[in-house]
Amino acid sequence: MVTDDFLQKIAELQKRLDGQLKNYPFPQQPEYLYDPLRYVLAGNAKRLRPVLLTLTGQAFGVDEDDLRHAALAVELLHNFTLVHDDIMDDDLLRHGQPTVQNKWDNATAILAGDGLFIEAHRAISRVRNNTQRVGAVFNDGALAVCVGQAYDKEYEENQTITLNDYLHMTEKKTGAMLSLCVEIPALLANQDEGVCSQLRKFGYDIGKGFQIQDDILEIFSDADEMGKSLGSDVIAQKQTALTLMARKMAQEQWSEFCQRSEGQPIDEKLTGMRTFFKDSGVYAETTAMAEEYFNNAVSDLVVIPDPGREELVAFTNFIKNRNY
Amino acid sequence: MVTDDFLQKIAELQKRLDGQLKNYPFPQQPEYLYDPLRYVLAGNAKRLRPVLLTLTGQAFGVDEDDLRHAALAVELLHNFTLVHDDIMDDDLLRHGQPTVQNKWDNATAILAGDGLFIEAHRAISRVRNNTQRVGAVFNDGALAVCVGQAYDKEYEENQTITLNDYLHMTEKKTGAMLSLCVEIPALLANQDEGVCSQLRKFGYDIGKGFQIQDDILEIFSDADEMGKSLGSDVIAQKQTALTLMARKMAQEQWSEFCQRSEGQPIDEKLTGMRTFFKDSGVYAETTAMAEEYFNNAVSDLVVIPDPGREELVAFTNFIKNRNY
Repeated sequence: MVTDDFLQKIAELQKRLDGQLKNYPFPQQPEYLYDPLRYVLAGNAKRLRPVLLTLTGQAFGVDEDDLRHAALAVELLHNFTLVHDDIMDDDLLRHGQPTVQNKWDNATAILAGDGLFIEAHRAISRVRNNTQRVGAVFNDGALAVCVGQAYDKEYEENQTITLNDYLHMTEKKTGAMLSLCVEIPALLANQDEGVCSQLRKFGYDIGKGFQIQDDILEIFSDADEMGKSLGSDVIAQKQTALTLMARKMAQEQWSEFCQRSEGQPIDEKLTGMRTFFKDSGVYAETTAMAEEYFNNAVSDLVVIPDPGREELVAFTNFIKNRNY
Repeated sequence: MVTDDFLQKIAELQKRLDGQLKNYPFPQQPEYLYDPLRYVLAGNAKRLRPVLLTLTGQAFGVDEDDLRHAALAVELLHNFTLVHDDIMDDDLLRHGQPTVQNKWDNATAILAGDGLFIEAHRAISRVRNNTQRVGAVFNDGALAVCVGQAYDKEYEENQTITLNDYLHMTEKKTGAMLSLCVEIPALLANQDEGVCSQLRKFGYDIGKGFQIQDDILEIFSDADEMGKSLGSDVIAQKQTALTLMARKMAQEQWSEFCQRSEGQPIDEKLTGMRTFFKDSGVYAETTAMAEEYFNNAVSDLVVIPDPGREELVAFTNFIKNRNY
């Protein structure tokens, strides 16, 4: 159940974190480095990762200062990966505004990403409890995201990858960052490896649920709410949970569809794809798969003490129920 | 004095470090991430930074394992900055081989740089003494390098910058990394802030000497030995120690020379520039400035105990005497 009280708590947390990020105390100079950092953090983002980290930390009774530093660190880290991924993927919009390399250029965006990553390290190094272990887990999480991005790039040109390959890639690219959001507060609360490993699994599960759902929303939701151009996966001929499920469930018909729709205008192709996914059962099966990962994520939360656990269950449902 | 014994010691150190870097235990997969990392470290590099770090650590009697981790970390960090700078500056060659974005593409090179930076953090986190402080100084050094790179990019389009601006930029872009190479071993040997700050100054001084000399060699040395295309600063119309000194010492004549040589073939322009710098006294004055920074660097070494100090003096002279 996602109660109104909980939604209000989330909204307040988002607002507070957003304010801290929008007023992050970067130096004024050099503007070449810091203007893009300010620009990136001024974007209209949902701050889901630091919210998750904060809720988990509160459940474990973590010191407030440590929690604030860690929350800012994961959002900076997340933004580092977005800025560099947007260059790598030639994306022009992010959160409804031009990406850094679109507004400035590649060089500026490369350095902005580097700067965000370094600032993320500075923020995480400010936590006082278990500092060394937290720093190591943080850096390893960053590596996992890069490994995931590498697989994603490898798969772009490989038409033989399977749904399992995709899920492995997603565990790294999306799951590892969400794992950080629950493992780091656990480490700040001196939890043992058993708890940490269960929470890492939570991150992988909610990450996979989230990404599969993202692929679905990319095709089926309203463009305005996504804050980016809908159908960009289609334009880029990206392999998503839906296309890989289609290849798995209905290889022949999917292959026929792809041949038939090649060269069609993007709107027409998108409409055809929607119909294909619905009629073939691909949409239903993919949605069920996302749901299963979200359910697993809820089960993983058993290691979190009440009453905080209830809030994290509500957070998981909040993510699951999003429609953009 | 740079004795043959010392040169042999340096050569052995370079060889050992080079071997460790060329056999760095990266995973095989994903190749998209790790192939470029192996490629970068297989390059024909001089390993000056880890050599400096190792000599300093030996002077302070630092634990060998700690020293090895730190030496590898600074070389990984240095290579991270090279890979990203080469994209930002559109450089095609590095150490005589194609740069990563030239051999692969921008996306691959961005991720390779990120991977090197993360691996650098992993390496530095393996030191056992003073781990937290060492990690913080390491990350702050990385930030200084990015700040320096940002100023460098800002200055590209600013024809009013002075020699002082250039020296400030160089202190960050080149000096900060060399400061790390002496401050980190000092921290590993539990030296106090007085020693550390003096050693940071050493890094800035040798860094400025090194960069000014680099600008001179770019115009006056043999192309083959530089391992990159000579005159690339001229082609890019880069502001260097020489051009800024020319503007300072002989503004009018320099401005005339620039107008006169505009549009000339690059060989002709380079020859003309050499003559101009020699005849106007710019070459002599710039060389004297580099020499002064190297002399200051030698003076800074007073905080290092003998007999190690003598080796670091020899190292400084070894850098100063390089001709490529």
